[in-house]
Amino acid sequence: MERFTINFNHDEFIYEQLYEYIKERILNKDLQADDKLPSKRKLSHYLNISENTVQNAYDQLSDEGYIYSIERSGFYVEKIQGLHRRSKSFVKEEFPKKEKSFLYDFSYHGIDPGFIDMDSYRRMMRKAMDRTDLLAHSGDPQGLFELRQEIKGYLFSSRGVNVSVEDIIISSGSEYLYSLLCRILPKNTLYGLENPGYHRTALYFDQYQLDSYPISMDESGICIDELIDKKIDCVTITPSHQFPTGIIYPVNRRIKLLKWAASNNSYIIEDDYDSEFRYSGKPIPALKSFDQEDRVVYMGSFSKCFSPALRISYMILPKKLKEIYDDIIQFNACPVPSITQYAFSLFMNEGYFNKHLNRMRTHYGKKRKLLVEALEQSGLNLQIQGMDSGLHFVCDFKDIQDEKAFVRSCREEGIRLYNLSHYIAGDKSHSSAKILIGYSIINMDHIIEGVQKITQIAQSFIQ
Amino acid sequence: MERFTINFNHDEFIYEQLYEYIKERILNKDLQADDKLPSKRKLSHYLNISENTVQNAYDQLSDEGYIYSIERSGFYVEKIQGLHRRSKSFVKEEFPKKEKSFLYDFSYHGIDPGFIDMDSYRRMMRKAMDRTDLLAHSGDPQGLFELRQEIKGYLFSSRGVNVSVEDIIISSGSEYLYSLLCRILPKNTLYGLENPGYHRTALYFDQYQLDSYPISMDESGICIDELIDKKIDCVTITPSHQFPTGIIYPVNRRIKLLKWAASNNSYIIEDDYDSEFRYSGKPIPALKSFDQEDRVVYMGSFSKCFSPALRISYMILPKKLKEIYDDIIQFNACPVPSITQYAFSLFMNEGYFNKHLNRMRTHYGKKRKLLVEALEQSGLNLQIQGMDSGLHFVCDFKDIQDEKAFVRSCREEGIRLYNLSHYIAGDKSHSSAKILIGYSIINMDHIIEGVQKITQIAQSFIQ
Repeated sequence: MERFTINFNHDEFIYEQLYEYIKERILNKDLQADDKLPSKRKLSHYLNISENTVQNAYDQLSDEGYIYSIERSGFYVEKIQGLHRRSKSFVKEEFPKKEKSFLYDFSYHGIDPGFIDMDSYRRMMRKAMDRTDLLAHSGDPQGLFELRQEIKGYLFSSRGVNVSVEDIIISSGSEYLYSLLCRILPKNTLYGLENPGYHRTALYFDQYQLDSYPISMDESGICIDELIDKKIDCVTITPSHQFPTGIIYPVNRRIKLLKWAASNNSYIIEDDYDSEFRYSGKPIPALKSFDQEDRVVYMGSFSKCFSPALRISYMILPKKLKEIYDDIIQFNACPVPSITQYAFSLFMNEGYFNKHLNRMRTHYGKKRKLLVEALEQSGLNLQIQGMDSGLHFVCDFKDIQDEKAFVRSCREEGIRLYNLSHYIAGDKSHSSAKILIGYSIINMDHIIEGVQKITQIAQSFIQ
Repeated sequence: MERFTINFNHDEFIYEQLYEYIKERILNKDLQADDKLPSKRKLSHYLNISENTVQNAYDQLSDEGYIYSIERSGFYVEKIQGLHRRSKSFVKEEFPKKEKSFLYDFSYHGIDPGFIDMDSYRRMMRKAMDRTDLLAHSGDPQGLFELRQEIKGYLFSSRGVNVSVEDIIISSGSEYLYSLLCRILPKNTLYGLENPGYHRTALYFDQYQLDSYPISMDESGICIDELIDKKIDCVTITPSHQFPTGIIYPVNRRIKLLKWAASNNSYIIEDDYDSEFRYSGKPIPALKSFDQEDRVVYMGSFSKCFSPALRISYMILPKKLKEIYDDIIQFNACPVPSITQYAFSLFMNEGYFNKHLNRMRTHYGKKRKLLVEALEQSGLNLQIQGMDSGLHFVCDFKDIQDEKAFVRSCREEGIRLYNLSHYIAGDKSHSSAKILIGYSIINMDHIIEGVQKITQIAQSFIQ
């Protein structure tokens, strides 16, 4: 009994202290296997605490397996070997230092949050939070009906795509959509990717150890002969505004692709990542809108047209693939919080989303115009490539040869740009520097200054 | 020219109507390949619209590849074959009928949303929405620093786990965590699962076409001999409150498991799904808190302890696996919206989460007590199994043989219960009916009535 000399701290539960104390003695081998513990009555008397407190400590030790009880006899120490806990103390960590930010950030990622109608969005969020019933369950695995209904209407009016609510699967970001698809399509599927193309798409397939091949592009889009040669089963394309080149797949190439898919039993993944932003004319209809043979997987998202932090994306599967989804995936929960989904459905339903799109289209259109004009007036020998849409374009600096070195110099001066070769698999050579310039997050006021800096750096590469 | 007879609708843009009109004529073969279109000047004069409007329509048709232009000559129709679009009209869909709900829902899924402190949660959400900077980017791939810092503190104080913020990966639900793990561990990993166990875990592995085996349980947890026999590389367990049996792994089995993992170069996935709720004594420390050899992948979530609709879960990887994660996964975006993450970090930081846990613990404790007492006073020969924690227990109805038929009868009477055999792979036979009874969502007022109904049905199975 003399082993039990505890100085109780009266801010903590006594039973917890007694439990900790006995546990430490067991782990330190002060108390050994099959040692009998003092009876509850004796120990409570000795420590001047209630018998109940001792009971609680013994129960906890027993629940965790440190001691065992024998009826009408008492509590005994378990034989515990090989546990040496070193308790480290808690260290509060500092907020990490921010990454170096760019003075002139011509990124194509991100959005301009200053232009979101936060008042309306907040109001929709508040409304959504009144739906406490949404918190009881994880919700429909395909996503909230209300949001799918809004997406259905949006796809019909803006993308020419006519689907049923039942066909829409809501998810979080494109990697999650790809992870669903990888589970639905056979394991030995050969995936084809646009080259040049979005470099991360290949990485998604790599993560799942699936086979993907870069497929060449010509001026109208991905080369169908190469799809046939390489026996591609499923090809990912960005037909409404190809990333990164900015071309639009003309209707003829679209038809040929759909025919290839139908005759080859293949699928086409249409990644419709930024088609909302077209500054002259109306949006290009989605490939899915022509898809009579049901070979197109359509992927959309609100990352570019609202916020990438919202993490709402969606997918439409051909019927055959949807049946497989229903069989094997249906029980997975939708990853987007129900409240977020419901708030965004209200934001769409009450017309704020359309207003937001119009405002952003005007805003980005102005930025694009300013940027293009500034470049054209720079005196440099250059050519803007790609259509008048999206959140970036490719600029061909015809008198510069080493695009990598040029981009590096710009970055050193605080200007974020990208070299096209970064998005090309295999032979990356071109005759002149093709540079990807984005205008999604750069401030309007920085554009002209930024182009002036680019011009100075470009000139140092030309002499 | 006489082919162009349009009745313009003055609610729509004229150029869009002209574009649609010409497109339809091309698709209908009224206009054929290489037909020349009227000049802009002539057509504008003829239709009495501006030349600019015609230009816009021609540009759109040209951008989409329906027509081509020859400099100084004019616009011509492209050769387009095989596109017959049937435009279906838009159908607004009705909200789907609700699934039949249970009168007495003894589910172990879901939560009681009436007990969430919505006022505080709403206030935190409002605060979070002031951080518009969060909307510009998709955010840190591992999750928001602020939330990871709170989780670190919570794990230290409540689970005995001491990790760095850098070790915590925030994600959406357990399936997403498993999908990350599957990409990190080698493809030929053999996964072991508790049997009985959570039936969906096997399905996650099946989706990725990975090999998993059910491993027998004894009264202290999963059988280590069987892990060795079956050459398991990674085992998923629920040591703090085993699902569904409710046992707690005693410290000795924990130590042996850790030794097995260390000597075998294997990993243990600790799924700590509902350890927050323990109604007598303090929470059982996580297995991860004993993990000196760094073999435990810890998975936690706020689904049970706040709301499954929040979709926040998290994972701690051993250093070796974290390095692989950093290499191959790091660029994936965190699936949880930044605002949701930040709001919950505030909810934790300002102490509301701890208050919520205490309130829920008391509430669920009361429900459990009421339910257990009602069952014990039913006059039936039964035994409650599992420890005094979690949101469900197993009740052994000793005089009933056919548990499936019993559960079916209960469900027909509007009572949701589960038969234990549903969670068992392979031989499902037991001598009497073992029934899973949950008390997470059932209303306190329905418990006694529900048990009375169960008793009546049970009696009809006994005579």
